[in-house]
Amino acid sequence: MSEDLKGGSGTDRRRALCGGGPAIILIAPQLGENIGTAARAMANCALDDLRLVSPREGWPSAKAVSAASGADWVIEKARLYPSVEAAIGGLVHVYAASARERSMVKREIGPRAATLEMRAALGAGEPCGVLFGPERTGLLNDEMALADTVLKIPLNPGFSSLNLAQAVLILGYEWFSAAGTPAPQALETRQTLSSAPSRPAEKAELFSFFDHLEEALSEKGFFGEPQKRPSMVRNLRNLFQRAGCTEQELRTLHGVVTALAGPRKRKREGKTG
Amino acid sequence: MSEDLKGGSGTDRRRALCGGGPAIILIAPQLGENIGTAARAMANCALDDLRLVSPREGWPSAKAVSAASGADWVIEKARLYPSVEAAIGGLVHVYAASARERSMVKREIGPRAATLEMRAALGAGEPCGVLFGPERTGLLNDEMALADTVLKIPLNPGFSSLNLAQAVLILGYEWFSAAGTPAPQALETRQTLSSAPSRPAEKAELFSFFDHLEEALSEKGFFGEPQKRPSMVRNLRNLFQRAGCTEQELRTLHGVVTALAGPRKRKREGKTG
Repeated sequence: MSEDLKGGSGTDRRRALCGGGPAIILIAPQLGENIGTAARAMANCALDDLRLVSPREGWPSAKAVSAASGADWVIEKARLYPSVEAAIGGLVHVYAASARERSMVKREIGPRAATLEMRAALGAGEPCGVLFGPERTGLLNDEMALADTVLKIPLNPGFSSLNLAQAVLILGYEWFSAAGTPAPQALETRQTLSSAPSRPAEKAELFSFFDHLEEALSEKGFFGEPQKRPSMVRNLRNLFQRAGCTEQELRTLHGVVTALAGPRKRKREGKTG
Repeated sequence: MSEDLKGGSGTDRRRALCGGGPAIILIAPQLGENIGTAARAMANCALDDLRLVSPREGWPSAKAVSAASGADWVIEKARLYPSVEAAIGGLVHVYAASARERSMVKREIGPRAATLEMRAALGAGEPCGVLFGPERTGLLNDEMALADTVLKIPLNPGFSSLNLAQAVLILGYEWFSAAGTPAPQALETRQTLSSAPSRPAEKAELFSFFDHLEEALSEKGFFGEPQKRPSMVRNLRNLFQRAGCTEQELRTLHGVVTALAGPRKRKREGKTG
């Protein structure tokens, strides 16, 4: 790419509209080139919060820079995380992009409605993000269980496989197109019935409750045979994700588990997932 | 690509929804690979009328077949034309895709409005098509002049360059999304990850769980002072109402409470709330 495309004024112009959109979280992307084309698609749509979890070819990536075709500021700003939980811990609303049917009790929504929801949430100061799985396999069910909502792109059901950058592009295109479109409705009244109003919980707070609940259940032998545990954990996580808890409600739920199971045996030591 | 993807039944399923959409006309595409990825994007969106004018690397193209990733029927059906005029001669409405500003007095429209117009026109028996120019340069002004309308994809004005397949994909996505009037979102897929599908719980089943939970919490002294109990109960009930549990999930939740608190002291005697 030529020098003037990387220069200050050129880049400034390119990124002028960027910022404030949802985070794009790529889980274990296989090829640096695909990270680059996804970054380019983000730049096309004025998105610039790129988060990477365990990119297979490592990071930083010269291939990603080359494939980004000038979207350098997105690549430079990208952040690397050791786990999905760490990447989304500070978010309030998380969507999981999926091309295939999942046998999961989870809210499903298309890109157009999702972007309107996200614009409303971001306007209310509630950070949002969208998870994209590896190119070949997509997201694992355990990763889907960390999200509130499945994002399903409407395509020919007989031929729905998109590459990573294209999936990011369609979401971003809807995001960009929706600028100035008001949300169709107020989503939720985020207040508890108790006197003090609360705020929507961040994912890290929810994951901390998952830790507590699953630890208590383990100690009580709830999960039975080890091979049954993963799906039981996913089902419980999906259930509590759907409830859209406030921070106050999570504290209540911690209290419920403590009341039922007794005080925690082990202190938590700063782990979040 | 594997043989079964090319076989009759597989291809039939993939192309089941195809046909009847606008023609996609690629003017002097530079690389066979880009024709293939454009064909794949068309297949994603149930489009199958691909027209080629003077592809630089010739036609047919093995690179195009490979890049189409299984969208063979689009490649096989593609037609080669010697000129733009010949390619669009049979059409009634022609749109010219353009990323940059043109000094041209011409009607300009976005992909969403364009697809609605095209659906109306095609429904009235008036064939439509969209021109896409070469990868590097886009359409010549002379080629633009053969179209009725400029199709402008709304993107970050500082970084609007898309590759050919992505431009086709956005148009196709809008085309496919505009089919019928689908509900803005599918609310939930009511299935658990276990083998047996479940059904949404009846309220009586939910209330039975409330009994169980609140009884267990009372016995553990969770509610503290009596006057605090009503609002704490309401908050917990609201939380579990919002989760929209299935019958199977409620049984799981009963199991959670039993595992944490031990077996119930009193037998339930037919009460529901």
